[in-house]
Amino acid sequence: MKLDFSSIFTPKNVAVIGVSPNFMKWGAIIAANIFIGGYKEKLFLVNPRHKRIYGIRSFPSIKDIRGTIDLVYVALPSKKIFNVLEECGEAGVKSCVVIAGGFSEIGSDGRDLERDVLKIANKYKIQIIGPNTMGICNPRHNFYGLMPPINPMPGNIGFISQSGNLGTQLMSLGEIQGIGFSKFVSSGNEIMLRTEDYLEYLGQDPDTEVILCYIEGLRDGKKFLDVAKKITPHKPIIVYKAGKTAAGSKAAQSHTGSVAGSWEITKSMFRQARIIEAGTSLELLDLAKAFSKMPPLKGKRVGILSWGGGWAVVCADHLMQVGLEVPPLSKEAIESLNKILPPYWSKSNPIDLVGTLDRRNQLNSLRILFESGMDGIVVLGVLTGLAFENFKKYQEIVNIPDAELQALIKEFEKTDMRFVKNIKKLVDIGHKPIVAVALSSEEVQEEYKKQIVIYSQPETAANILSKMYQYYQNKLKK
Amino acid sequence: MKLDFSSIFTPKNVAVIGVSPNFMKWGAIIAANIFIGGYKEKLFLVNPRHKRIYGIRSFPSIKDIRGTIDLVYVALPSKKIFNVLEECGEAGVKSCVVIAGGFSEIGSDGRDLERDVLKIANKYKIQIIGPNTMGICNPRHNFYGLMPPINPMPGNIGFISQSGNLGTQLMSLGEIQGIGFSKFVSSGNEIMLRTEDYLEYLGQDPDTEVILCYIEGLRDGKKFLDVAKKITPHKPIIVYKAGKTAAGSKAAQSHTGSVAGSWEITKSMFRQARIIEAGTSLELLDLAKAFSKMPPLKGKRVGILSWGGGWAVVCADHLMQVGLEVPPLSKEAIESLNKILPPYWSKSNPIDLVGTLDRRNQLNSLRILFESGMDGIVVLGVLTGLAFENFKKYQEIVNIPDAELQALIKEFEKTDMRFVKNIKKLVDIGHKPIVAVALSSEEVQEEYKKQIVIYSQPETAANILSKMYQYYQNKLKK
Repeated sequence: MKLDFSSIFTPKNVAVIGVSPNFMKWGAIIAANIFIGGYKEKLFLVNPRHKRIYGIRSFPSIKDIRGTIDLVYVALPSKKIFNVLEECGEAGVKSCVVIAGGFSEIGSDGRDLERDVLKIANKYKIQIIGPNTMGICNPRHNFYGLMPPINPMPGNIGFISQSGNLGTQLMSLGEIQGIGFSKFVSSGNEIMLRTEDYLEYLGQDPDTEVILCYIEGLRDGKKFLDVAKKITPHKPIIVYKAGKTAAGSKAAQSHTGSVAGSWEITKSMFRQARIIEAGTSLELLDLAKAFSKMPPLKGKRVGILSWGGGWAVVCADHLMQVGLEVPPLSKEAIESLNKILPPYWSKSNPIDLVGTLDRRNQLNSLRILFESGMDGIVVLGVLTGLAFENFKKYQEIVNIPDAELQALIKEFEKTDMRFVKNIKKLVDIGHKPIVAVALSSEEVQEEYKKQIVIYSQPETAANILSKMYQYYQNKLKK
Repeated sequence: MKLDFSSIFTPKNVAVIGVSPNFMKWGAIIAANIFIGGYKEKLFLVNPRHKRIYGIRSFPSIKDIRGTIDLVYVALPSKKIFNVLEECGEAGVKSCVVIAGGFSEIGSDGRDLERDVLKIANKYKIQIIGPNTMGICNPRHNFYGLMPPINPMPGNIGFISQSGNLGTQLMSLGEIQGIGFSKFVSSGNEIMLRTEDYLEYLGQDPDTEVILCYIEGLRDGKKFLDVAKKITPHKPIIVYKAGKTAAGSKAAQSHTGSVAGSWEITKSMFRQARIIEAGTSLELLDLAKAFSKMPPLKGKRVGILSWGGGWAVVCADHLMQVGLEVPPLSKEAIESLNKILPPYWSKSNPIDLVGTLDRRNQLNSLRILFESGMDGIVVLGVLTGLAFENFKKYQEIVNIPDAELQALIKEFEKTDMRFVKNIKKLVDIGHKPIVAVALSSEEVQEEYKKQIVIYSQPETAANILSKMYQYYQNKLKK
């Protein structure tokens, strides 16, 4: 059966079966989330026991809705869904998101239920997403058919997650970090549509430029790799593989019913397919951020610009440890920097700005470093948000007129933003990555995070640059 | 010369030399920070060119202040400090914080300057902190003699940092994470007082229960290890060592003038002295948080309670990878959990709460797991802040009376807090650690972070538990 993803990711209409007036039930929450997300097409509610729910008409059955329904959410317990699926089939529904758990992840009883669901789906050619899923979203379509109430920003990252909670929480974190998504699916137990199918689709999707996957186990590992190999020369695929150990693998089985293979074999197959492996779950986001916003690191030479010495040492160490280089500065660069930095500046790479508060000199130092033949740059601590709140505290003690203080704060905000814009410009024009590190990144303005790539520790910046370098090298090889 | 740390960490009076009416100068900022911090003893400003600065009397010289001064900040360029130090000596000043850089970190010229400073200091028996330092703080004394405007909370963690920016930024992050400090010193170039001296002091300091060190290079490695060996049976010492690679080591030299030895040798010596090594710079805080707030993990058996399956898999994997165990649940525990969780719960460790919204059952599940013979627990995703903002969004769409919604939000806040308090109580009574993971930890209430240990990813929780286990095992050995 030829798969049709438009009914899933850009549905013309959506129905939720199992909506209840009790707002603490999943059906109610999903319907509310679709509303709140601003879905512009048609949403239908189905519940035979009510005429209206939340002031909206409620249909007794999916069959009472006129026209074909693209996507139906079934928010009912596992044993109650068979009749409903039959009705969906008779009504010509194209795709069904089956929310309920209680299938293969609980053992043989659940596996029997899954088989029955699949039988009905095949009979009526309904595409099944899940079961045991938290739903789908497409931010560019304003479609947020998810269990948790989140509305990720539109962006160029496609995300397939075999865990609903992990996937949606990462997207929620992504929003704080300024990352946007093209499509997301919580693939659940994958009794019909599988990670490898979604991957194939995202590989061709023009809105998706980077693909993220959280995988516990693959039903068709060979297909996954074949599909991945075709995609990775054009789009990076970033994978976090769970179920690497006995305990993790057992947990995965009772989570999505998936069986994990040997991690060592999987790892080497990933490498062959040029898949980028995330070392930790949150590194999925760190990598996505870099690949979705920046050109790759094409060589090993990394320059460091730091507002303080300690972080520069940590960063230099870590860059070396992950196989990159922190080469000396050219004579020309040193001479140029001598003209603008205090006499006791480091005179080497890393460039320590030794507490220089002059914003223009900070920026000019970055420019000199960027143009000195480095393949990429890490900027440390310059955007740590100069704690404006504290300026106000000074006022209690120190005699600064209000206007002067306001002007000072404004000036800092302005120069911060100029710094951010200049980083973005350098990256775009120079086709080389610049990553910033702001340790209190919680205090960094949201706008900055949208414009450039900011991490909260130097080690992360080094790791990500190293994986960018490897990806590019692998691409060149074949 | 016998060192006297009371003049440094609990000074009865402090003078700042080099205060200026220009509030963008370091002298002015340090003086303002001491004021704002609420230092209760006496603060003197010194600047010969002004009678009053910021409405406060300014003395022409340190010699014009009556009585002995415990601690003097010298905020003047390196070449201008000699006369001032002579004057300090004549006035009987006990300790001097020399802020300026431009000493051994810039090469031989700077080394000569250092020698001259040391000569004066020895002549007058002045204790020198720095040079090239960001200062000292003692939150329990309301003394914040630091360059950056931060006021860390009082707590039981002592912190010696050879980098001022790294140290102060970590403390600033620590505040967000609910961690308090007993004493902090940015030790700078350490021409007189060294890491090993501060360590010895903190080892005996009754307010300090955990010691953090950021080290680039040690002047007297043997002394450091001898001192550490005496402390670690009573207080954990957590160290991040920078300058591990050629690039890092070179950067360290131009930062604090320190020369790093072979990392492999250092590492093995650390192990012998039962020093806990932080793998990344931010892990210093992660470790400090655990050791300052919780009993150690005494065995390998770790239980996992998770609100969702994906994070549980990731956590189980990582616990195994760091050498811990995720053992099966006892029959009794399974039977107890069967009574309170939905029939399709995981029936194993990790316990997946499969989306259970009932707060009492979440808490009871934790209690059952805690009492089932585990040595420690990881609680995942239960405190992720149930996004109260979104409840309000629902109201736009769904017909919930305002009073009902407010009651719901209040109820969640109440049960969240009850959950936090119960974790704390279980830890205190059971003498076993429980760490929580809240991925959007930025959204978790500050109060929760003060009460219990919360990390932002499961991998961190696993790493920290593993290091706790190793520390305890090492302690038992000798």
